[in-house]
Amino acid sequence: MESSSFSKPSNMDGTQGIESGVKVANPRTVRSSDFFLRFLALITSLVAIIVLATSKETEIVPVIVIPTLPAINVELSAKWQYVQAFVFFMVINIIACVYAAISLVLSIASRAGSKGLLLMLIILDLVMMALLFSANGAAAAIGLIGVHGNSHLRWNKICNIFGSNCQHVVASVVVSTIGASVFLLLILLTVVNLQKRSH
Amino acid sequence: MESSSFSKPSNMDGTQGIESGVKVANPRTVRSSDFFLRFLALITSLVAIIVLATSKETEIVPVIVIPTLPAINVELSAKWQYVQAFVFFMVINIIACVYAAISLVLSIASRAGSKGLLLMLIILDLVMMALLFSANGAAAAIGLIGVHGNSHLRWNKICNIFGSNCQHVVASVVVSTIGASVFLLLILLTVVNLQKRSH
Repeated sequence: MESSSFSKPSNMDGTQGIESGVKVANPRTVRSSDFFLRFLALITSLVAIIVLATSKETEIVPVIVIPTLPAINVELSAKWQYVQAFVFFMVINIIACVYAAISLVLSIASRAGSKGLLLMLIILDLVMMALLFSANGAAAAIGLIGVHGNSHLRWNKICNIFGSNCQHVVASVVVSTIGASVFLLLILLTVVNLQKRSH
Repeated sequence: MESSSFSKPSNMDGTQGIESGVKVANPRTVRSSDFFLRFLALITSLVAIIVLATSKETEIVPVIVIPTLPAINVELSAKWQYVQAFVFFMVINIIACVYAAISLVLSIASRAGSKGLLLMLIILDLVMMALLFSANGAAAAIGLIGVHGNSHLRWNKICNIFGSNCQHVVASVVVSTIGASVFLLLILLTVVNLQKRSH
């Protein structure tokens, strides 16, 4: 019994839904969207991990040790492991990547009708979203001072020296923010679907 | 027709619910919890705003201008406006506070049965949660370097000079994180309620 996409609503197990005022999507479309979004979350977190992991940069920097003597060239490195916010960002993205992979399987299992499993998925999606947005906010805040510096705090900008490292950090945060937004959309998709099936 | 709290499930409009494996709460309890959580979100964001707004601290700091001359005492101030992450944190908490107040009214209105209004509330709750966790992450990341400093970045700690300011920032971030978690619980409450009413 195939239902049309935007006319009479039909719920996940094929029975007629209740008129909700909100257009009802085809259950197959909902399933495909859920699968696609979880896959996208996996890809974005994986890309964010790789981009940050490959951000190490080493530069020769002239350092003035004694003001009356000429500057000494020192080899300095920028690594994501040096900043707690980036370590947090990396750990959360690894967890998000692993969770996205596991939830792909669990999501297919939950379609069998287990409400408990579906609820567990929503709770974990919510927690994952919260952690990802926290990590993105933390990394972005450090990245912003790295780019511009802060004269009040007397924290110098870093990106004039480690430009490539900064580009990696910015790209990683942007991709991870897309990943966090994907979890937001996943929760929204579940809520819209539940609302259509509620009476 | 009053329903019992934990035996046979009954939905919002008094009809029999579907066996879900999850115990069904009394609709009144759900309404009270929703109202309580929105009120709590309002209070936490308001407290976070006040605590950060009152964080200004001025200290006399000895500054060495020329190494061969003695240090000069300089009056330095620490304000939340000096750091972009704290400005973002403040703006988001103000938006959260105003939204929590408006959503209290909207939430009562949505009980009349408008699914569109309920969906709008969930979307805004999700966006608010995302913004709050981002802002908390950003403020916490800066706060952490303020407390410990970072030798790799050559960013000195600030909290050994501006201790009171740092205490305000930490307290504000903790309270705001409670507020962000309240939005998470609000979404969870709505999802659990929708799931119980779905078929």
